[in-house]
Amino acid sequence: MGAPASGEFDLIARYFAPIAAAFPGALGLKDDAAIFDPPAGSRLVVTADAMVAGVHFMADDPPDLIARKLMRVNLSDLAAKGATPYACLMTICLPPIYLPGGTEEGWIAAFAQGLAADASEYAFPLAGGDTTRTPGPLTLSLTAVGLAPMGRAPLLRSGAQAGDLVFVTGTIGDAHLGLAVQQGEFAALAPQHRAALIERYRLPQPRVAFGQALAAVPGVHAAADVSDGLVADLGHICAASGLAARLQAGKLPLSAAAEAVMAMAGIGARLLTGGDDYEIVFTAAPAAEPALHALASDQGLKLTAIGSVGHGQGVSVLDGAGDVISLVQKGYRHF
Amino acid sequence: MGAPASGEFDLIARYFAPIAAAFPGALGLKDDAAIFDPPAGSRLVVTADAMVAGVHFMADDPPDLIARKLMRVNLSDLAAKGATPYACLMTICLPPIYLPGGTEEGWIAAFAQGLAADASEYAFPLAGGDTTRTPGPLTLSLTAVGLAPMGRAPLLRSGAQAGDLVFVTGTIGDAHLGLAVQQGEFAALAPQHRAALIERYRLPQPRVAFGQALAAVPGVHAAADVSDGLVADLGHICAASGLAARLQAGKLPLSAAAEAVMAMAGIGARLLTGGDDYEIVFTAAPAAEPALHALASDQGLKLTAIGSVGHGQGVSVLDGAGDVISLVQKGYRHF
Repeated sequence: MGAPASGEFDLIARYFAPIAAAFPGALGLKDDAAIFDPPAGSRLVVTADAMVAGVHFMADDPPDLIARKLMRVNLSDLAAKGATPYACLMTICLPPIYLPGGTEEGWIAAFAQGLAADASEYAFPLAGGDTTRTPGPLTLSLTAVGLAPMGRAPLLRSGAQAGDLVFVTGTIGDAHLGLAVQQGEFAALAPQHRAALIERYRLPQPRVAFGQALAAVPGVHAAADVSDGLVADLGHICAASGLAARLQAGKLPLSAAAEAVMAMAGIGARLLTGGDDYEIVFTAAPAAEPALHALASDQGLKLTAIGSVGHGQGVSVLDGAGDVISLVQKGYRHF
Repeated sequence: MGAPASGEFDLIARYFAPIAAAFPGALGLKDDAAIFDPPAGSRLVVTADAMVAGVHFMADDPPDLIARKLMRVNLSDLAAKGATPYACLMTICLPPIYLPGGTEEGWIAAFAQGLAADASEYAFPLAGGDTTRTPGPLTLSLTAVGLAPMGRAPLLRSGAQAGDLVFVTGTIGDAHLGLAVQQGEFAALAPQHRAALIERYRLPQPRVAFGQALAAVPGVHAAADVSDGLVADLGHICAASGLAARLQAGKLPLSAAAEAVMAMAGIGARLLTGGDDYEIVFTAAPAAEPALHALASDQGLKLTAIGSVGHGQGVSVLDGAGDVISLVQKGYRHF
């Protein structure tokens, strides 16, 4: 348990304390703990996600994008619960090459720039955490804290009701295809489509504003973000609610780039089961549909009704003829 | 990003959900987030620490002790802020050998038993987190949330005042010596002393009840837990408060086992700078001393006045003649 020259404290003061400056309870990252005084009438929504180099991102991805992905995968969880971002704590385990004197010494400055950009964009300051070394891959963990009004039921996975419609924001499958493109698949795809898909993989767009507004719409019953894949995450809603869902494959919202891939190769099942979309899938009473479309339209966000909730278990995907499509892999699993 | 047979969800449901059962806001670990509804009039005290195999513990340490150390190093941070444990979130990055079918498949069950034991002992339920795999060493991160009364100033590093006395709970240096004994040092030491020191290294005793009571004693100004080493952690208080501290080496509270080591080898500086004590070092007005000793006595905890706070910078350690002792290493640094 050695003690080289430049320590945790210098690193925190130089790179991370500025990202905490907007949040008095962070105590300038000079204490062992942060103090949260949430506004009266608030409850806290708290989530944590870890990211490991070689598993959740590539070690040579741009450091600012790694930081922003760390922030955004957690912001996406808050969005799906209808919470307003409040603050986060980060633990970062650094291989020696990233430390002062190491071959990747500039990495932390670039990483901190990405954190700072999203802390500012989402009003989501860094409030604390821990910095340590590791003999293994770069490993990051973020705990995200959001606020929701005490007087309203939180938007959970478990609230779906039989007869609900299933909705999803944005388009599905782009991030999965972006990773595939980055790994050399679909080489004949047009450059602008390639770039669009890769961008969706590298920089999630958590639906924070939509999630906050969604939680206030009467008749919205259950929600999750699409991180493990549409079928898997809708499956979590079904399991938590004790119900089943049926999706219409033909209604799946696809980007122009994903349509172009579909025209080249029949890979529909992969779009339904690929992960990293960071859209919101939710269920709501049919009567809520006009209000939901108005809300999405106000925010300039695509919203699509893609199926319905009923009695039973699991998620079925139906083709145009009403036949069940077999899905080999139900979504990204963490092992 | 593969998808072997047994996934995150089975593991969570089987081993971790029972530790969350006492906390309704954990939602049975079936959602992406936890809901905290802290009692009115509470502020939250939030801290996070990461632990990496080969850095903060040995991979072959007993799994239940690794879990308890993870809980307790964070509980110690809450204790030093005077906070009451409320709930925690854990992210755990597992090498494949710990997964179902791996050579260490029983590890998680034993680890979860340790978590459950401390969650129960400290009323500190698991409320959420993330489980993923890693190609590197076992890596754990815990975010600990505690409660403190809104109407009282929180106990911070930054509040020390010139003229304060410096106090420390318990005894100092045992954990550092315990690690040394485990690594083969002091082989001539009596078995009961060896066992006592190793136990102090392996299972910290966070001063949770003392910290809560301490925060209510008038005249207590600043506190930190002793994790990086007495001199380093008191140094953090001094730096945050813009003051200096002087310690009397002769007043350092030592266990019988540490006294026995001292009789064998003159290693006083190591006791002052070794880490992992998880005692509380704090500063208070001299007028508070009788109340502090009464409190410690009520709790059956040793409490020692070991020095004083004055103007200047840094921590000096004085011998019996009033001369400054040189300390080669000022405490455990994380790199």
